[in-house]
Amino acid sequence: MKTRSFTHTINPFCAVIPGQVIGAVGVGRVVDSRHPDFKTGDLVSGWLSWAEYTIVTDYQLLQKLDVNMGFPLSYYAGGVLGHAGLAAYGGLFKVCKPKKGEKVFVSAASGSVGNLVGQYAKLFGCYVVGCAGTKEKVDLLKETIGFDAAFNYKEETNFNAALQRYFPEGIDIYFDNVGGEMLEAAVQNMNLFGRIAVCGMISEYTDTQKKAKPDIVQVIYKRIKIEGFLAIDLNDIYPEFVSTTVQYLQTDKLKVIEDMSYGVESIPSAFVDIFRGNNIGKKVVKIAED
Amino acid sequence: MKTRSFTHTINPFCAVIPGQVIGAVGVGRVVDSRHPDFKTGDLVSGWLSWAEYTIVTDYQLLQKLDVNMGFPLSYYAGGVLGHAGLAAYGGLFKVCKPKKGEKVFVSAASGSVGNLVGQYAKLFGCYVVGCAGTKEKVDLLKETIGFDAAFNYKEETNFNAALQRYFPEGIDIYFDNVGGEMLEAAVQNMNLFGRIAVCGMISEYTDTQKKAKPDIVQVIYKRIKIEGFLAIDLNDIYPEFVSTTVQYLQTDKLKVIEDMSYGVESIPSAFVDIFRGNNIGKKVVKIAED
Repeated sequence: MKTRSFTHTINPFCAVIPGQVIGAVGVGRVVDSRHPDFKTGDLVSGWLSWAEYTIVTDYQLLQKLDVNMGFPLSYYAGGVLGHAGLAAYGGLFKVCKPKKGEKVFVSAASGSVGNLVGQYAKLFGCYVVGCAGTKEKVDLLKETIGFDAAFNYKEETNFNAALQRYFPEGIDIYFDNVGGEMLEAAVQNMNLFGRIAVCGMISEYTDTQKKAKPDIVQVIYKRIKIEGFLAIDLNDIYPEFVSTTVQYLQTDKLKVIEDMSYGVESIPSAFVDIFRGNNIGKKVVKIAED
Repeated sequence: MKTRSFTHTINPFCAVIPGQVIGAVGVGRVVDSRHPDFKTGDLVSGWLSWAEYTIVTDYQLLQKLDVNMGFPLSYYAGGVLGHAGLAAYGGLFKVCKPKKGEKVFVSAASGSVGNLVGQYAKLFGCYVVGCAGTKEKVDLLKETIGFDAAFNYKEETNFNAALQRYFPEGIDIYFDNVGGEMLEAAVQNMNLFGRIAVCGMISEYTDTQKKAKPDIVQVIYKRIKIEGFLAIDLNDIYPEFVSTTVQYLQTDKLKVIEDMSYGVESIPSAFVDIFRGNNIGKKVVKIAED
Protein backbone atom coordinates (compact mmCIF):
# COMPACT_ATOMS: atom_id res chain seq x y z
CA MET A 1 0.00 0.00 0.00
CA LYS A 2 1.23 3.48 -0.74
CA THR A 3 0.18 6.59 1.14
CA ARG A 4 0.73 10.25 0.58
CA SER A 5 1.67 12.06 3.80
CA PHE A 6 0.13 15.26 5.07
CA THR A 7 1.33 15.78 8.61
CA HIS A 8 3.92 14.10 10.76
CA THR A 9 4.78 14.57 14.40
CA ILE A 10 8.12 14.55 16.11
CA ASN A 11 8.45 12.28 19.08
CA PRO A 12 11.65 12.19 21.11
CA PHE A 13 11.28 8.44 21.49
CA CYS A 14 12.04 8.07 17.78
CA ALA A 15 15.59 9.18 18.40
CA VAL A 16 16.58 7.04 21.34
CA ILE A 17 16.48 3.50 20.04
CA PRO A 18 20.02 3.10 18.78
CA GLY A 19 20.46 1.52 15.38
CA GLN A 20 16.78 1.38 14.64
CA VAL A 21 15.08 3.49 12.03
CA ILE A 22 11.61 4.50 13.08
CA GLY A 23 9.11 6.38 11.04
CA ALA A 24 7.02 9.24 12.26
CA VAL A 25 3.47 9.08 13.44
CA GLY A 26 1.70 10.64 10.52
CA VAL A 27 -1.54 11.10 8.70
CA GLY A 28 -1.77 10.34 5.00
CA ARG A 29 -4.17 9.41 2.24
CA VAL A 30 -4.02 6.01 0.53
CA VAL A 31 -3.05 6.42 -3.11
CA ASP A 32 -2.86 2.71 -3.91
CA SER A 33 -3.76 -0.40 -1.93
CA ARG A 34 -4.00 -4.16 -2.29
CA HIS A 35 -5.12 -4.60 1.34
CA PRO A 36 -8.85 -5.31 1.65
CA ASP A 37 -9.32 -2.99 4.68
CA PHE A 38 -7.83 0.09 3.02
CA LYS A 39 -9.13 1.66 -0.18
CA THR A 40 -7.66 4.36 -2.37
CA GLY A 41 -8.72 7.69 -0.90
CA ASP A 42 -8.92 6.49 2.73
CA LEU A 43 -7.30 8.70 5.34
CA VAL A 44 -5.04 6.72 7.67
CA SER A 45 -2.84 7.40 10.68
CA GLY A 46 0.08 5.33 11.89
CA TRP A 47 3.78 4.85 11.40
CA LEU A 48 4.69 6.45 8.08
CA SER A 49 8.11 7.25 6.65
CA TRP A 50 9.74 10.61 6.97
CA ALA A 51 8.89 11.22 3.33
CA GLU A 52 6.19 12.49 1.05
CA TYR A 53 5.13 8.96 0.13
CA THR A 54 5.30 5.74 2.17
CA ILE A 55 5.09 2.10 1.14
CA VAL A 56 3.26 0.50 4.08
CA THR A 57 3.87 -3.21 4.67
CA ASP A 58 3.13 -3.45 8.41
CA TYR A 59 -0.53 -2.74 8.93
CA GLN A 60 -0.67 -3.45 12.64
CA LEU A 61 -0.37 0.12 13.79
CA LEU A 62 -2.27 1.65 10.91
CA GLN A 63 -5.82 2.80 11.39
CA LYS A 64 -8.43 4.34 9.18
CA LEU A 65 -9.48 7.80 10.31
CA ASP A 66 -12.97 9.04 10.82
CA VAL A 67 -12.54 12.74 10.16
CA ASN A 68 -16.18 13.70 9.83
CA MET A 69 -15.94 15.97 12.85
CA GLY A 70 -13.99 18.55 10.88
CA PHE A 71 -10.90 18.75 13.09
CA PRO A 72 -7.56 19.47 11.38
CA LEU A 73 -5.65 16.33 10.31
CA SER A 74 -2.77 17.30 12.61
CA TYR A 75 -5.00 16.52 15.61
CA TYR A 76 -4.81 12.86 14.61
CA ALA A 77 -1.09 12.82 13.78
CA GLY A 78 -0.02 12.01 17.30
CA GLY A 79 -1.70 15.18 18.53
CA VAL A 80 -4.64 15.97 20.76
CA LEU A 81 -6.72 13.13 19.27
CA GLY A 82 -3.66 10.90 18.81
CA HIS A 83 -1.03 9.51 21.11
CA ALA A 84 -0.12 12.82 22.82
CA GLY A 85 -3.73 13.24 23.92
CA LEU A 86 -4.03 9.61 24.91
CA ALA A 87 -0.76 9.73 26.90
CA ALA A 88 -1.97 12.86 28.70
CA TYR A 89 -5.47 11.59 29.39
CA GLY A 90 -4.56 8.01 30.25
CA GLY A 91 -1.43 8.96 32.17
CA LEU A 92 -3.45 11.35 34.29
CA PHE A 93 -6.66 9.42 34.82
CA LYS A 94 -5.58 5.79 34.59
CA VAL A 95 -2.06 5.93 36.04
CA CYS A 96 -2.45 8.79 38.56
CA LYS A 97 -6.17 8.51 39.42
CA PRO A 98 -6.69 12.11 40.56
CA LYS A 99 -9.31 13.27 43.04
CA LYS A 100 -10.93 16.66 42.72
CA GLY A 101 -8.92 19.33 44.50
CA GLU A 102 -5.65 17.44 44.37
CA LYS A 103 -2.43 19.29 43.58
CA VAL A 104 -0.86 18.39 40.24
CA PHE A 105 2.60 19.31 39.02
CA VAL A 106 3.53 18.95 35.33
CA SER A 107 7.06 19.33 33.95
CA ALA A 108 7.76 20.27 30.32
CA ALA A 109 4.29 21.65 30.74
CA SER A 110 4.13 23.49 27.43
CA GLY A 111 5.06 20.35 25.53
CA SER A 112 2.67 18.22 23.51
CA VAL A 113 1.65 15.98 26.40
CA GLY A 114 2.27 18.34 29.32
CA ASN A 115 -0.07 21.11 28.26
CA LEU A 116 -2.89 18.60 27.79
CA VAL A 117 -2.26 16.96 31.17
CA GLY A 118 -2.61 20.36 32.81
CA GLN A 119 -5.78 21.15 30.89
CA TYR A 120 -7.42 17.80 31.64
CA ALA A 121 -6.47 18.17 35.32
CA LYS A 122 -7.87 21.72 35.51
CA LEU A 123 -11.11 20.67 33.78
CA PHE A 124 -11.37 17.81 36.28
CA GLY A 125 -11.02 20.17 39.24
CA CYS A 126 -7.37 19.96 40.31
CA TYR A 127 -4.89 22.69 41.21
CA VAL A 128 -2.24 22.66 38.47
CA VAL A 129 1.26 24.12 38.32
CA GLY A 130 3.64 23.59 35.41
CA CYS A 131 7.25 24.36 34.69
CA ALA A 132 8.82 25.21 31.36
CA GLY A 133 12.05 26.69 30.06
CA THR A 134 11.20 30.16 28.70
CA LYS A 135 9.17 33.17 29.77
CA GLU A 136 7.07 32.82 26.62
CA LYS A 137 6.08 29.27 27.58
CA VAL A 138 5.36 30.20 31.18
CA ASP A 139 3.14 33.08 30.06
CA LEU A 140 1.32 30.78 27.67
CA LEU A 141 0.65 28.27 30.46
CA LYS A 142 -0.73 30.91 32.80
CA GLU A 143 -2.57 33.16 30.38
CA THR A 144 -3.76 30.98 27.53
CA ILE A 145 -3.83 27.42 28.79
CA GLY A 146 -5.18 28.24 32.24
CA PHE A 147 -2.69 26.67 34.64
CA ASP A 148 -3.04 28.01 38.19
CA ALA A 149 0.65 28.86 38.17
CA ALA A 150 3.77 28.19 36.15
CA PHE A 151 7.48 28.88 36.53
CA ASN A 152 10.63 28.96 34.45
CA TYR A 153 12.88 26.22 35.82
CA LYS A 154 15.91 27.90 34.26
CA GLU A 155 15.43 30.81 36.66
CA GLU A 156 15.35 28.54 39.71
CA THR A 157 18.59 27.65 41.45
CA ASN A 158 16.89 25.18 43.78
CA PHE A 159 14.04 23.07 42.38
CA ASN A 160 13.15 21.81 45.84
CA ALA A 161 12.62 25.36 47.12
CA ALA A 162 10.66 26.28 43.98
CA LEU A 163 8.25 23.39 44.46
CA GLN A 164 7.86 24.23 48.15
CA ARG A 165 6.84 27.74 47.08
CA TYR A 166 4.29 26.59 44.52
CA PHE A 167 3.01 23.66 46.58
CA PRO A 168 2.94 24.75 50.23
CA GLU A 169 0.53 21.86 50.86
CA GLY A 170 2.60 19.36 48.86
CA ILE A 171 2.16 17.62 45.52
CA ASP A 172 -0.33 14.79 45.08
CA ILE A 173 0.42 13.99 41.45
CA TYR A 174 3.56 14.63 39.44
CA PHE A 175 3.36 14.08 35.70
CA ASP A 176 7.01 13.73 34.83
CA ASN A 177 8.20 14.59 31.35
CA VAL A 178 11.80 15.37 32.22
CA GLY A 179 13.32 13.03 34.83
CA GLY A 180 16.57 14.22 36.40
CA GLU A 181 16.73 16.72 39.23
CA MET A 182 13.11 17.77 38.88
CA LEU A 183 12.01 14.21 39.65
CA GLU A 184 14.16 14.25 42.80
CA ALA A 185 12.68 17.58 43.88
CA ALA A 186 9.16 16.35 43.21
CA VAL A 187 9.72 13.28 45.42
CA GLN A 188 10.90 15.64 48.19
CA ASN A 189 7.64 17.55 47.90
CA MET A 190 5.19 14.71 47.39
CA ASN A 191 2.36 14.14 49.82
CA LEU A 192 1.53 10.76 51.36
CA PHE A 193 0.34 8.33 48.69
CA GLY A 194 1.59 10.61 45.93
CA ARG A 195 1.63 9.28 42.38
CA ILE A 196 4.26 9.97 39.75
CA ALA A 197 3.51 9.08 36.14
CA VAL A 198 6.77 8.92 34.23
CA CYS A 199 6.12 9.79 30.63
CA GLY A 200 9.40 11.30 29.49
CA MET A 201 12.86 12.19 30.64
CA ILE A 202 14.03 14.77 28.15
CA SER A 203 16.72 15.99 30.57
CA GLU A 204 18.15 12.48 30.72
CA TYR A 205 18.03 11.94 26.96
CA THR A 206 20.24 14.88 26.39
CA ASP A 207 22.60 14.49 29.35
CA THR A 208 23.16 11.05 30.77
CA GLN A 209 24.89 12.57 33.79
CA LYS A 210 21.55 13.92 34.93
CA LYS A 211 20.06 10.65 36.09
CA ALA A 212 17.54 11.09 38.89
CA LYS A 213 18.34 9.75 42.34
CA PRO A 214 14.89 9.90 43.90
CA ASP A 215 15.06 9.59 47.68
CA ILE A 216 13.92 6.02 48.28
CA VAL A 217 13.48 6.67 52.01
CA GLN A 218 10.79 9.20 51.08
CA VAL A 219 9.31 6.83 48.49
CA ILE A 220 8.75 4.33 51.30
CA TYR A 221 7.62 6.65 54.09
CA LYS A 222 5.30 8.59 51.85
CA ARG A 223 4.16 5.44 49.99
CA ILE A 224 4.90 7.04 46.65
CA LYS A 225 4.14 5.22 43.44
CA ILE A 226 6.38 5.87 40.43
CA GLU A 227 5.05 4.34 37.24
CA GLY A 228 6.37 4.37 33.70
CA PHE A 229 3.83 4.08 30.93
CA LEU A 230 3.38 4.35 27.17
CA ALA A 231 0.30 5.51 25.31
CA ILE A 232 0.12 2.17 23.46
CA ASP A 233 -0.91 0.47 26.72
CA LEU A 234 -3.88 2.74 27.25
CA ASN A 235 -6.18 1.30 24.62
CA ASP A 236 -8.84 0.32 27.13
CA ILE A 237 -9.34 3.99 27.97
CA TYR A 238 -9.27 5.07 24.30
CA PRO A 239 -13.06 5.35 23.71
CA GLU A 240 -13.51 7.41 26.90
CA PHE A 241 -10.52 9.56 25.94
CA VAL A 242 -11.88 10.27 22.46
CA SER A 243 -15.43 11.06 23.56
CA THR A 244 -14.30 13.34 26.40
CA THR A 245 -11.73 15.10 24.24
CA VAL A 246 -14.06 15.62 21.29
CA GLN A 247 -16.63 17.11 23.66
CA TYR A 248 -14.01 19.45 25.16
CA LEU A 249 -12.84 20.48 21.68
CA GLN A 250 -16.36 21.10 20.41
CA THR A 251 -17.15 23.29 23.42
CA ASP A 252 -13.80 25.13 23.21
CA LYS A 253 -12.77 24.01 26.66
CA LEU A 254 -9.51 22.51 25.42
CA LYS A 255 -6.87 24.68 23.72
CA VAL A 256 -4.80 22.99 21.04
CA ILE A 257 -1.23 24.23 20.93
CA GLU A 258 0.72 23.17 17.85
CA ASP A 259 4.13 24.17 16.64
CA MET A 260 4.01 23.68 12.88
CA SER A 261 6.85 23.58 10.39
CA TYR A 262 6.53 22.92 6.67
CA GLY A 263 8.03 20.43 4.23
CA VAL A 264 10.29 17.40 4.55
CA GLU A 265 13.26 19.76 4.55
CA SER A 266 12.15 21.06 7.98
CA ILE A 267 12.33 17.62 9.63
CA PRO A 268 15.93 17.80 10.89
CA SER A 269 15.45 21.22 12.49
CA ALA A 270 12.14 20.05 13.97
CA PHE A 271 13.98 17.20 15.70
CA VAL A 272 16.66 19.50 17.02
CA ASP A 273 13.97 21.88 18.29
CA ILE A 274 12.43 19.11 20.39
CA PHE A 275 15.68 18.32 22.14
CA ARG A 276 16.54 21.99 22.63
CA GLY A 277 13.10 22.65 24.05
CA ASN A 278 12.25 25.16 21.33
CA ASN A 279 8.81 23.75 20.59
CA ILE A 280 5.65 25.00 22.20
CA GLY A 281 2.93 22.40 22.16
CA LYS A 282 2.88 19.52 19.73
CA LYS A 283 5.62 19.71 17.11
CA VAL A 284 4.05 18.96 13.74
CA VAL A 285 5.69 18.86 10.33
CA LYS A 286 3.26 19.56 7.55
CA ILE A 287 4.40 17.62 4.51
CA ALA A 288 1.63 18.60 2.10
CA GLU A 289 -1.86 20.08 1.97
CA ASP A 290 -4.68 17.59 1.53
CA MET B 1 -1.95 1.34 81.80
CA LYS B 2 1.22 -0.54 82.62
CA THR B 3 2.49 -3.58 80.76
CA ARG B 4 5.27 -6.02 81.37
CA SER B 5 7.27 -6.79 78.21
CA PHE B 6 8.16 -10.23 76.97
CA THR B 7 9.54 -9.80 73.46
CA HIS B 8 10.50 -6.82 71.37
CA THR B 9 11.55 -6.62 67.74
CA ILE B 10 14.14 -4.44 66.11
CA ASN B 11 13.03 -2.45 63.12
CA PRO B 12 15.48 -0.28 61.18
CA PHE B 13 12.79 2.34 60.74
CA CYS B 14 13.03 3.10 64.46
CA ALA B 15 16.44 4.58 63.92
CA VAL B 16 15.87 6.88 60.98
CA ILE B 17 13.39 9.47 62.19
CA PRO B 18 15.76 12.12 63.55
CA GLY B 19 14.93 13.57 66.92
CA GLN B 20 12.06 11.23 67.57
CA VAL B 21 12.08 8.50 70.16
CA ILE B 22 10.16 5.47 69.04
CA GLY B 23 9.43 2.40 71.06
CA ALA B 24 9.73 -1.12 69.85
CA VAL B 25 6.98 -3.30 68.58
CA GLY B 26 6.56 -5.66 71.46
CA VAL B 27 4.32 -8.11 73.21
CA GLY B 28 3.55 -7.69 76.89
CA ARG B 29 1.04 -8.55 79.57
CA VAL B 30 -1.07 -5.87 81.23
CA VAL B 31 -0.17 -5.55 84.92
CA ASP B 32 -2.47 -2.63 85.68
CA SER B 33 -5.10 -0.83 83.60
CA ARG B 34 -7.75 1.87 83.88
CA HIS B 35 -8.73 1.51 80.24
CA PRO B 36 -12.04 -0.36 79.81
CA ASP B 37 -10.81 -2.40 76.82
CA PHE B 38 -7.74 -3.80 78.55
CA LYS B 39 -7.79 -5.85 81.76
CA THR B 40 -4.97 -6.98 84.02
CA GLY B 41 -3.60 -10.19 82.58
CA ASP B 42 -4.43 -9.40 78.92
CA LEU B 43 -1.71 -10.03 76.39
CA VAL B 44 -1.20 -7.04 74.09
CA SER B 45 1.01 -6.12 71.14
CA GLY B 46 1.92 -2.63 69.98
CA TRP B 47 4.42 0.13 70.57
CA LEU B 48 6.05 -0.52 73.93
CA SER B 49 9.13 1.09 75.47
CA TRP B 50 12.57 -0.42 75.24
CA ALA B 51 12.20 -1.45 78.86
CA GLU B 52 10.90 -4.18 81.10
CA TYR B 53 7.77 -2.20 81.91
CA THR B 54 5.89 0.36 79.83
CA ILE B 55 3.34 3.01 80.80
CA VAL B 56 1.01 3.08 77.77
CA THR B 57 -0.92 6.29 77.14
CA ASP B 58 -1.53 6.02 73.39
CA TYR B 59 -3.86 3.11 72.80
CA GLN B 60 -4.29 3.58 69.06
CA LEU B 61 -1.70 1.05 67.99
CA LEU B 62 -2.26 -1.35 70.86
CA GLN B 63 -4.23 -4.52 70.30
CA LYS B 64 -5.27 -7.41 72.46
CA LEU B 65 -3.78 -10.71 71.35
CA ASP B 66 -5.63 -13.91 70.76
CA VAL B 67 -2.93 -16.46 71.49
CA ASN B 68 -5.11 -19.54 71.71
CA MET B 69 -3.37 -21.10 68.73
CA GLY B 70 -0.28 -21.80 70.77
CA PHE B 71 2.28 -19.96 68.66
CA PRO B 72 5.23 -18.35 70.47
CA LEU B 73 4.64 -14.74 71.57
CA SER B 74 7.51 -13.59 69.37
CA TYR B 75 5.41 -14.42 66.28
CA TYR B 76 3.17 -11.51 67.25
CA ALA B 77 5.94 -9.09 68.17
CA GLY B 78 6.34 -7.74 64.68
CA GLY B 79 7.14 -11.25 63.46
CA VAL B 80 5.48 -13.72 61.14
CA LEU B 81 2.00 -12.90 62.53
CA GLY B 82 2.88 -9.24 63.05
CA HIS B 83 4.09 -6.45 60.82
CA ALA B 84 6.97 -8.39 59.19
CA GLY B 85 4.53 -11.01 57.98
CA LEU B 86 1.99 -8.41 56.94
CA ALA B 87 4.63 -6.39 55.06
CA ALA B 88 5.79 -9.53 53.26
CA TYR B 89 2.30 -10.82 52.45
CA GLY B 90 0.73 -7.47 51.58
CA GLY B 91 3.80 -6.16 49.76
CA LEU B 92 3.86 -9.26 47.60
CA PHE B 93 0.17 -9.86 46.95
CA LYS B 94 -1.34 -6.38 47.16
CA VAL B 95 1.48 -4.21 45.85
CA CYS B 96 3.10 -6.61 43.35
CA LYS B 97 0.11 -8.77 42.37
CA PRO B 98 2.07 -11.86 41.26
CA LYS B 99 0.90 -14.40 38.71
CA LYS B 100 1.83 -18.06 39.02
CA GLY B 101 5.15 -18.77 37.34
CA GLU B 102 6.41 -15.21 37.54
CA LYS B 103 10.03 -14.56 38.45
CA VAL B 104 10.53 -12.90 41.83
CA PHE B 105 13.74 -11.38 43.18
CA VAL B 106 14.10 -10.55 46.88
CA SER B 107 17.01 -8.61 48.38
CA ALA B 108 18.04 -8.90 52.03
CA ALA B 109 16.29 -12.20 51.54
CA SER B 110 17.25 -13.75 54.85
CA GLY B 111 15.86 -10.75 56.73
CA SER B 112 12.60 -10.70 58.65
CA VAL B 113 10.48 -9.60 55.71
CA GLY B 114 12.56 -10.97 52.84
CA ASN B 115 12.52 -14.62 53.86
CA LEU B 116 8.73 -14.53 54.22
CA VAL B 117 8.27 -12.82 50.84
CA GLY B 118 10.24 -15.62 49.23
CA GLN B 119 8.28 -18.31 51.06
CA TYR B 120 4.89 -16.79 50.21
CA ALA B 121 5.97 -16.41 46.58
CA LYS B 122 7.19 -20.03 46.39
CA LEU B 123 3.98 -21.33 47.99
CA PHE B 124 2.03 -19.29 45.45
CA GLY B 125 3.92 -20.82 42.53
CA CYS B 126 6.58 -18.30 41.58
CA TYR B 127 10.28 -18.78 40.79
CA VAL B 128 12.19 -17.07 43.60
CA VAL B 129 15.79 -15.93 43.89
CA GLY B 130 17.18 -14.04 46.86
CA CYS B 131 20.40 -12.30 47.69
CA ALA B 132 22.05 -11.99 51.08
CA GLY B 133 25.43 -11.06 52.50
CA THR B 134 26.97 -14.26 53.88
CA LYS B 135 27.41 -17.87 52.77
CA GLU B 136 25.48 -18.99 55.85
CA LYS B 137 22.47 -16.89 54.84
CA VAL B 138 22.63 -18.03 51.22
CA ASP B 139 22.75 -21.67 52.31
CA LEU B 140 19.79 -21.12 54.62
CA LEU B 141 17.76 -19.61 51.79
CA LYS B 142 18.49 -22.48 49.42
CA GLU B 143 18.47 -25.41 51.81
CA THR B 144 16.05 -24.55 54.60
CA ILE B 145 13.75 -21.86 53.30
CA GLY B 146 13.36 -23.32 49.82
CA PHE B 147 14.31 -20.48 47.48
CA ASP B 148 15.01 -21.70 43.92
CA ALA B 149 18.38 -19.97 44.06
CA ALA B 150 20.27 -17.46 46.18
CA PHE B 151 23.56 -15.60 45.91
CA ASN B 152 25.95 -13.64 48.09
CA TYR B 153 25.94 -10.09 46.78
CA LYS B 154 29.30 -9.44 48.43
CA GLU B 155 30.88 -11.95 46.06
CA GLU B 156 29.44 -10.23 42.98
CA THR B 157 31.40 -7.44 41.33
CA ASN B 158 28.59 -6.62 38.93
CA PHE B 159 25.01 -6.85 40.21
CA ASN B 160 23.62 -6.43 36.72
CA ALA B 161 25.55 -9.48 35.47
CA ALA B 162 24.55 -11.47 38.55
CA LEU B 163 20.87 -10.79 37.96
CA GLN B 164 21.22 -11.67 34.28
CA ARG B 165 22.67 -15.01 35.34
CA TYR B 166 19.90 -15.81 37.81
CA PHE B 167 17.09 -14.36 35.70
CA PRO B 168 17.87 -15.19 32.05
CA GLU B 169 14.18 -14.53 31.31
CA GLY B 170 14.10 -11.32 33.34
CA ILE B 171 12.53 -10.30 36.64
CA ASP B 172 8.79 -9.74 36.96
CA ILE B 173 8.73 -8.70 40.62
CA TYR B 174 11.47 -7.19 42.74
CA PHE B 175 10.84 -6.96 46.46
CA ASP B 176 13.39 -4.33 47.45
CA ASN B 177 14.73 -4.27 50.97
CA VAL B 178 18.01 -2.52 50.21
CA GLY B 179 17.75 0.28 47.63
CA GLY B 180 21.06 1.49 46.18
CA GLU B 181 22.87 -0.30 43.37
CA MET B 182 20.76 -3.45 43.63
CA LEU B 183 17.67 -1.42 42.78
CA GLU B 184 19.44 -0.02 39.71
CA ALA B 185 20.49 -3.52 38.61
CA ALA B 186 16.97 -4.85 39.15
CA VAL B 187 15.51 -2.10 36.94
CA GLN B 188 18.01 -3.12 34.24
CA ASN B 189 16.74 -6.69 34.44
CA MET B 190 13.03 -6.10 34.85
CA ASN B 191 10.58 -7.45 32.32
CA LEU B 192 7.83 -5.40 30.72
CA PHE B 193 5.25 -4.34 33.31
CA GLY B 194 7.60 -5.31 36.14
CA ARG B 195 6.64 -4.32 39.66
CA ILE B 196 9.01 -3.17 42.39
CA ALA B 197 7.76 -3.00 45.96
CA VAL B 198 10.07 -0.81 47.98
CA CYS B 199 10.02 -1.95 51.55
CA GLY B 200 13.47 -0.99 52.80
CA MET B 201 16.74 0.57 51.78
CA ILE B 202 19.19 -0.69 54.33
CA SER B 203 22.12 0.16 52.03
CA GLU B 204 20.94 3.79 51.87
CA TYR B 205 20.37 4.07 55.62
CA THR B 206 23.95 3.24 56.29
CA ASP B 207 25.59 5.10 53.41
CA THR B 208 23.83 8.12 51.97
CA GLN B 209 26.22 8.11 49.00
CA LYS B 210 24.61 4.92 47.79
CA LYS B 211 21.40 6.48 46.55
CA ALA B 212 19.86 4.53 43.69
CA LYS B 213 19.73 6.11 40.24
CA PRO B 214 17.21 3.80 38.57
CA ASP B 215 17.28 4.18 34.81
CA ILE B 216 14.13 6.18 34.13
CA VAL B 217 14.33 5.44 30.40
CA GLN B 218 13.87 1.77 31.26
CA VAL B 219 11.14 2.59 33.78
CA ILE B 220 9.19 4.15 30.92
CA TYR B 221 9.90 1.68 28.12
CA LYS B 222 9.31 -1.32 30.32
CA ARG B 223 6.35 0.34 32.11
CA ILE B 224 7.85 -0.44 35.48
CA LYS B 225 5.97 0.44 38.64
CA ILE B 226 8.02 1.34 41.73
CA GLU B 227 5.90 1.62 44.85
CA GLY B 228 6.81 2.40 48.43
CA PHE B 229 4.60 0.94 51.13
CA LEU B 230 4.32 0.39 54.86
CA ALA B 231 2.66 -2.50 56.63
CA ILE B 232 0.30 -0.10 58.43
CA ASP B 233 -1.47 0.59 55.12
CA LEU B 234 -2.26 -3.04 54.52
CA ASN B 235 -5.02 -3.46 57.06
CA ASP B 236 -7.61 -4.40 54.46
CA ILE B 237 -5.59 -7.51 53.62
CA TYR B 238 -4.98 -8.33 57.32
CA PRO B 239 -7.69 -11.01 57.81
CA GLU B 240 -6.61 -12.83 54.63
CA PHE B 241 -2.95 -12.56 55.70
CA VAL B 242 -3.66 -14.02 59.15
CA SER B 243 -5.82 -16.90 57.94
CA THR B 244 -3.40 -17.88 55.17
CA THR B 245 -0.37 -17.59 57.44
CA VAL B 246 -1.92 -19.53 60.31
CA GLN B 247 -2.83 -22.29 57.87
CA TYR B 248 0.73 -22.37 56.49
CA LEU B 249 2.16 -22.44 60.01
CA GLN B 250 -0.16 -25.21 61.18
CA THR B 251 0.75 -27.36 58.18
CA ASP B 252 4.48 -26.61 58.52
CA LYS B 253 4.64 -25.04 55.09
CA LEU B 254 6.15 -21.80 56.42
CA LYS B 255 9.48 -21.76 58.22
CA VAL B 256 9.90 -19.18 60.96
CA ILE B 257 13.42 -17.81 61.20
CA GLU B 258 14.12 -15.77 64.33
CA ASP B 259 17.34 -14.35 65.66
CA MET B 260 16.82 -14.09 69.40
CA SER B 261 18.84 -12.18 71.96
CA TYR B 262 18.05 -11.91 75.64
CA GLY B 263 17.50 -9.06 78.11
CA VAL B 264 17.28 -5.27 77.81
CA GLU B 265 21.06 -5.15 77.92
CA SER B 266 21.16 -6.83 74.49
CA ILE B 267 19.12 -4.08 72.79
CA PRO B 268 22.03 -1.87 71.64
CA SER B 269 23.94 -4.77 70.08
CA ALA B 270 20.70 -6.03 68.49
CA PHE B 271 20.30 -2.65 66.76
CA VAL B 272 23.89 -2.67 65.56
CA ASP B 273 23.42 -6.21 64.25
CA ILE B 274 20.52 -5.09 62.07
CA PHE B 275 22.56 -2.38 60.39
CA ARG B 276 25.59 -4.61 59.99
CA GLY B 277 23.42 -7.35 58.49
CA ASN B 278 24.33 -9.81 61.23
CA ASN B 279 20.78 -10.98 61.85
CA ILE B 280 19.21 -13.95 60.14
CA GLY B 281 15.45 -13.73 60.08
CA LYS B 282 13.47 -11.59 62.46
CA LYS B 283 15.60 -9.98 65.15
CA VAL B 284 13.82 -10.44 68.45
CA VAL B 285 14.90 -9.34 71.91
CA LYS B 286 13.41 -11.46 74.64
CA ILE B 287 12.93 -9.25 77.69
CA ALA B 288 11.41 -11.81 80.03
CA GLU B 289 9.71 -15.20 80.10
CA ASP B 290 5.94 -15.13 80.41
